[in-house]
Amino acid sequence: MTTPWRLTLDASLLAHRDDPMCRYVQLATLGLDGRPANRTVVFRGFRPDSDDLIVTVDARSQKMAEIARSPFFEICWYFGRTREQYRLGGTARSINDSDRFLAGLRTDVWRSLADAVRIQFDWPSPGTDWQNHDAHVSAEIPDSSTPLTSFRLLLLTVERADYLNLLADPPLRQQLEIGQDGWTCRRVNP
Amino acid sequence: MTTPWRLTLDASLLAHRDDPMCRYVQLATLGLDGRPANRTVVFRGFRPDSDDLIVTVDARSQKMAEIARSPFFEICWYFGRTREQYRLGGTARSINDSDRFLAGLRTDVWRSLADAVRIQFDWPSPGTDWQNHDAHVSAEIPDSSTPLTSFRLLLLTVERADYLNLLADPPLRQQLEIGQDGWTCRRVNP
Repeated sequence: MTTPWRLTLDASLLAHRDDPMCRYVQLATLGLDGRPANRTVVFRGFRPDSDDLIVTVDARSQKMAEIARSPFFEICWYFGRTREQYRLGGTARSINDSDRFLAGLRTDVWRSLADAVRIQFDWPSPGTDWQNHDAHVSAEIPDSSTPLTSFRLLLLTVERADYLNLLADPPLRQQLEIGQDGWTCRRVNP
Repeated sequence: MTTPWRLTLDASLLAHRDDPMCRYVQLATLGLDGRPANRTVVFRGFRPDSDDLIVTVDARSQKMAEIARSPFFEICWYFGRTREQYRLGGTARSINDSDRFLAGLRTDVWRSLADAVRIQFDWPSPGTDWQNHDAHVSAEIPDSSTPLTSFRLLLLTVERADYLNLLADPPLRQQLEIGQDGWTCRRVNP
């Protein structure tokens, strides 16, 4: 059975296909101090034959440490033109070379990136004290076919979704959840 | 002393003043199940003579219950035109009539809202089972001068900020924190 929120999300993406910012989503995780953490990440598509969302991440970044300690996330995805919001919650896991099955996917995503994005994985460790200008600008362009060690994928498995459509009158709000018998959908007050 | 992130944020808001969506921010909290929660809210300005952010909230909403149990939040605020991101973390508290000092502020914000927003506070309890269409569309327009009981303000006190400017080359990233002697600012690798 097709995942119900995926059908709607594909339509939202189609309606915004000329807007690169429609792939910017806000990823909330649990900070190492127990407080919520929240930042913008770029949606890089779905894992083939799956509804897992793909996001690229630097192995040295704070969010990697957070996910390693607590895998729970909630993505907030707002589409301005259609006034739709998706809250997608679930568990995340990171992919590196040691996962043979997914190593090919990691390489595919690496190849699909722009040089300007790939080069960032060769920069000094993110979030640590500023090193110097040269370390950031004169790094060599990395090989486009072989991912750098710091390059990881986050696979985000969605276990529940809260969908809001503000163009509907009254607004439509649905809460979806995956269980043993598949997805259930409940309409709730907006 | 002026709050350093506030100066930059005011400039970002000015650069986007013709874009209503620039006031949509993503508010992450700690869900009642311990997982992160994340949704879009509208920034309603700053508390006068303060850097506290104001957000309106329904007293019956899930985020109110979350804030009551754990006041920590992180807002993610992305500005598309200037490619800036603010991550603003701190503690939230809600305001109702019983707080005399702030009741006036609550009324002022209520008055500034559109009817279409005010009426939502007269709708059935958000996030509970869908009641019916009429309960949502034929609610009477509430009095514009007296806030409904369900109407609350959230005051978000920022204790730390992570600022990213992606138009700078290399990107500029600064981490700011409030301490006993005021704000400190550290430049970090992007």
